[in-house]
Amino acid sequence: TIDHIFKEIFKAGLDLQKDDHSKALLVSRKKKAEDTIVNVKGELIGNGIPHFVFGPCAVESYEQTATVAKAVKEKGLRLLRGGAYKPRTSPYDFQGLGLEGLKILKRVADEFDMAVISEIVNPADIETACQYIDVIQIGARNMQNFELLKAAGAVNKPVLLKRGIAATIEEFINAAEYIMAQGNGQIILCERGIRTYERATRNTLDISAVPILKKETHLPVLVDVTHSTGRRDLLLPAAKAALAIGADGVMAEVHPDPAVALSDAAQQMNLDQFDEFYNELKAFAYARV
Amino acid sequence: TIDHIFKEIFKAGLDLQKDDHSKALLVSRKKKAEDTIVNVKGELIGNGIPHFVFGPCAVESYEQTATVAKAVKEKGLRLLRGGAYKPRTSPYDFQGLGLEGLKILKRVADEFDMAVISEIVNPADIETACQYIDVIQIGARNMQNFELLKAAGAVNKPVLLKRGIAATIEEFINAAEYIMAQGNGQIILCERGIRTYERATRNTLDISAVPILKKETHLPVLVDVTHSTGRRDLLLPAAKAALAIGADGVMAEVHPDPAVALSDAAQQMNLDQFDEFYNELKAFAYARV
Amino acid sequence: TIDHIFKEIFKAGLDLQKDDHSKALLVSRKKKAEDTIVNVKGELIGNGIPHFVFGPCAVESYEQTATVAKAVKEKGLRLLRGGAYKPRTSPYDFQGLGLEGLKILKRVADEFDMAVISEIVNPADIETACQYIDVIQIGARNMQNFELLKAAGAVNKPVLLKRGIAATIEEFINAAEYIMAQGNGQIILCERGIRTYERATRNTLDISAVPILKKETHLPVLVDVTHSTGRRDLLLPAAKAALAIGADGVMAEVHPDPAVALSDAAQQMNLDQFDEFYNELKAFAYARV
Amino acid sequence: TIDHIFKEIFKAGLDLQKDDHSKALLVSRKKKAEDTIVNVKGELIGNGIPHFVFGPCAVESYEQTATVAKAVKEKGLRLLRGGAYKPRTSPYDFQGLGLEGLKILKRVADEFDMAVISEIVNPADIETACQYIDVIQIGARNMQNFELLKAAGAVNKPVLLKRGIAATIEEFINAAEYIMAQGNGQIILCERGIRTYERATRNTLDISAVPILKKETHLPVLVDVTHSTGRRDLLLPAAKAALAIGADGVMAEVHPDPAVALSDAAQQMNLDQFDEFYNELKAFAYARV
Repeated sequence: TIDHIFKEIFKAGLDLQKDDHSKALLVSRKKKAEDTIVNVKGELIGNGIPHFVFGPCAVESYEQTATVAKAVKEKGLRLLRGGAYKPRTSPYDFQGLGLEGLKILKRVADEFDMAVISEIVNPADIETACQYIDVIQIGARNMQNFELLKAAGAVNKPVLLKRGIAATIEEFINAAEYIMAQGNGQIILCERGIRTYERATRNTLDISAVPILKKETHLPVLVDVTHSTGRRDLLLPAAKAALAIGADGVMAEVHPDPAVALSDAAQQMNLDQFDEFYNELKAFAYARV
Repeated sequence: TIDHIFKEIFKAGLDLQKDDHSKALLVSRKKKAEDTIVNVKGELIGNGIPHFVFGPCAVESYEQTATVAKAVKEKGLRLLRGGAYKPRTSPYDFQGLGLEGLKILKRVADEFDMAVISEIVNPADIETACQYIDVIQIGARNMQNFELLKAAGAVNKPVLLKRGIAATIEEFINAAEYIMAQGNGQIILCERGIRTYERATRNTLDISAVPILKKETHLPVLVDVTHSTGRRDLLLPAAKAALAIGADGVMAEVHPDPAVALSDAAQQMNLDQFDEFYNELKAFAYARV
Repeated sequence: TIDHIFKEIFKAGLDLQKDDHSKALLVSRKKKAEDTIVNVKGELIGNGIPHFVFGPCAVESYEQTATVAKAVKEKGLRLLRGGAYKPRTSPYDFQGLGLEGLKILKRVADEFDMAVISEIVNPADIETACQYIDVIQIGARNMQNFELLKAAGAVNKPVLLKRGIAATIEEFINAAEYIMAQGNGQIILCERGIRTYERATRNTLDISAVPILKKETHLPVLVDVTHSTGRRDLLLPAAKAALAIGADGVMAEVHPDPAVALSDAAQQMNLDQFDEFYNELKAFAYARV
Repeated sequence: TIDHIFKEIFKAGLDLQKDDHSKALLVSRKKKAEDTIVNVKGELIGNGIPHFVFGPCAVESYEQTATVAKAVKEKGLRLLRGGAYKPRTSPYDFQGLGLEGLKILKRVADEFDMAVISEIVNPADIETACQYIDVIQIGARNMQNFELLKAAGAVNKPVLLKRGIAATIEEFINAAEYIMAQGNGQIILCERGIRTYERATRNTLDISAVPILKKETHLPVLVDVTHSTGRRDLLLPAAKAALAIGADGVMAEVHPDPAVALSDAAQQMNLDQFDEFYNELKAFAYARV
């Protein structure tokens, strides 16, 4: 019937429009079919082998950071995270050590031959940060801080972009495009849970976002199991699910003594928990390869 | 300080209250530590081995249902789903074949020696349904239709309870309790995605709900990858994630010719897609065991 | 350009499709331009004058119900609400007095010459309920309990349909259509808040739904300020907003002694609070007329 | 019983904790009981009389801005909004005229004796902006861009802070605290809708947030009816609801020719629509005073 034909034309039009739009983006797989591999001091994120990023929520001291770095390095891992600038809901909560924190990260990175990842929150700090860290993290609250994205796009340094607290996948992809449009294509996407009505977890891990991001873009995708679940008992199962669904790696927080941590005390692993977590996750990952 | 002591007492009180509440529930693991295994015509759901439920969204005819049953049986699987009573947003959409659909399911179950699962929507139909089907499904829209839950709890037949469209995990557990409080403990929980702001998927698969439900209750947990994602291209990755995170099985829709399906045309697999899906999923599942 | 023309055709098609769909619904204003006025024992809901429905969350006893009825009647109001069948998250919470509660409502209605509204939860109870109450309420949890909607559509009694906990406006309208498609067009819609991430209120009052429902359908629209806010301190401001935006009336819970109420203790008004609430709301409403 | 006593102590503790926390905030009404009145070039926002902010989504040219300014001024209004830096989802959408836009606003403000409000997105631009505009707007996407908040807190210029796209009320209040903690207490809060599953409106206007913010803080609260509803047909009813519930004013977008607007074409009012909107809203507001 004529109605049916009309509907088919209509659907074709819809697809065509979407196509055109996606085709235009630099981060889109339609623009570049092969996977982007982000080289972080020799670690090739996106190369088909799972990568792991561990470290404390916040850099609190050289000793604290070095203790975690040592434990991570002993596993044969080289990617360390740690917050120097901490965006906190209240202005009276610990705001991080700032530049001092970046310097601690740099010292630890040099001593242990590791690569360090840290969040930068002010466009004015991006250039300075490049001297101290190996990956610039853009946090969830700043995913649509476009001035920050542009500043990160203007330097030659890998960027780890976290999904916004209530960002759609489309907005997430467009945020990455802000970076790449400035010339920096070394972008790692990171799913970290979205805000929903459910309170059993801190956020709701949107695990389906992983295959969608892998399909729509050519960028590597990590899953931050700490912020998505906010529960120590869910870190391992969530990490397995992340790898099973095709994530390029997993990020989680480790602290020498979570009980006295200056932020996120409830959800960080201590060193024993980390040991158990990583051993089980590694066994799971290898069984699949 | 006194403040600190007060806070500790306070927290202890909070935990105590939660404890008391959870302890009271029959479905709680605190009430029964060991896993419940639901025996569906010999299929032991919850026994540590993944189980699979496939079948069309709606029973449309004997031929359609038998075609899918045959394909499923050829994989060595014995659990078949199919809707006879279809709750639809619009009263003018196909509402299912009703009792006729249940009879078709029964005939197919007998011919292929399979167990059939179908949604019942009216408390008055529960007893009749028991003559035709092996598992009573309570759908997402009816998760808090307490009259239906009580009716399902009053018969001796396994119940597959789907999580409500925007139900919290706590509400989901309490809905199961409505069934068990009536005497029927043969309950299978099914995560099927929750409603969020994100539209890239039909619903947002709340994968973290699986380990939480396994921890809080002693009931087996399935993941419906069709309704949670609503996208054929995500069925396989979502199913892998479900098994990796500890689900007792996976549910998905299969139709001989999805393009002419009377409901959910866009998300059902055809027989070739099903073949590929199941083979890959089986390989994944076995690699882990 | 050809692209632009194509897009215009495309948009026209989209509008056309939506039009067709809306046109088909019996509850749509496209089907019937003038407002439906629901006659509840002489109270004309939808006639342009604000109507008010007050009463306890649950009918607990004749005395409790009569006490509230008296206070409401003294204001010159004739619409009384009270729950006899209470859908509760936990099976161990107070479930209502059932048929006994309906009988209490009937007795109170007769004695005070009032009309009573009560929720029915089982399709099998609809016919019996018609002997005792003047308006059948379908609660939020049952908005897509289609068997219940059909049963309510098959009797000659006004129906108050509450929006589902996470229902879209489109789903809400279609739920009303289930009732009207059975022949019963005496439907009152009730916005009662939706589930979101925000926890400062019990639900999020979607105030914009009121003008949308008034525009899309010809049915009267009430706002339940008790369940949408869940906070006694917000009842009056929310009620003013409801009337200002065009609602046909307001619904709120009143209890002689909320502290000992068997349900919703925290959000019901006591008689003094009700007195103050109604007087202020009336002054607001009259200032506008 | 002992259980009951324990629970009462427990609840008291809970309230106490909340109290302590709220008491600490500078923006809290517990810290300062009387309303803050923000003086914007003589317009006293928060003085109990409704205030109105109108203007185009984006400043596109002097002519466009002056045309709207003239129409607004003719109503006896003196507050004009207009975006110079436009945060847009895609980097390829119109990003605003930047500094040039601020200069146009300044010229228009001088010529018409009006006060201008414009969004600033980079902490580095705050000081410069102070030379051109009368109110610094912090947009929804930047509500937790703490560097920007701190920069706005360090200058002597009123700040209009919009609620984040999925921010809780508590986070919103804490964001204001970031500004006030730097010394700038001239803060106007603006509810602009939150992100939910509902798509009938662009966002869901959380009207209950208005009385909560008025109760919890001493700051004036506006409602942006354009971004919360995203629908021209809902602007007037939403504005009435905002005033009825106690907002200190309303904000809406007006454009000489919305069809050719470089952003938000679908939701801006043209001058005739603005005329009708404002006349009706004024009549509503005056009927209440």
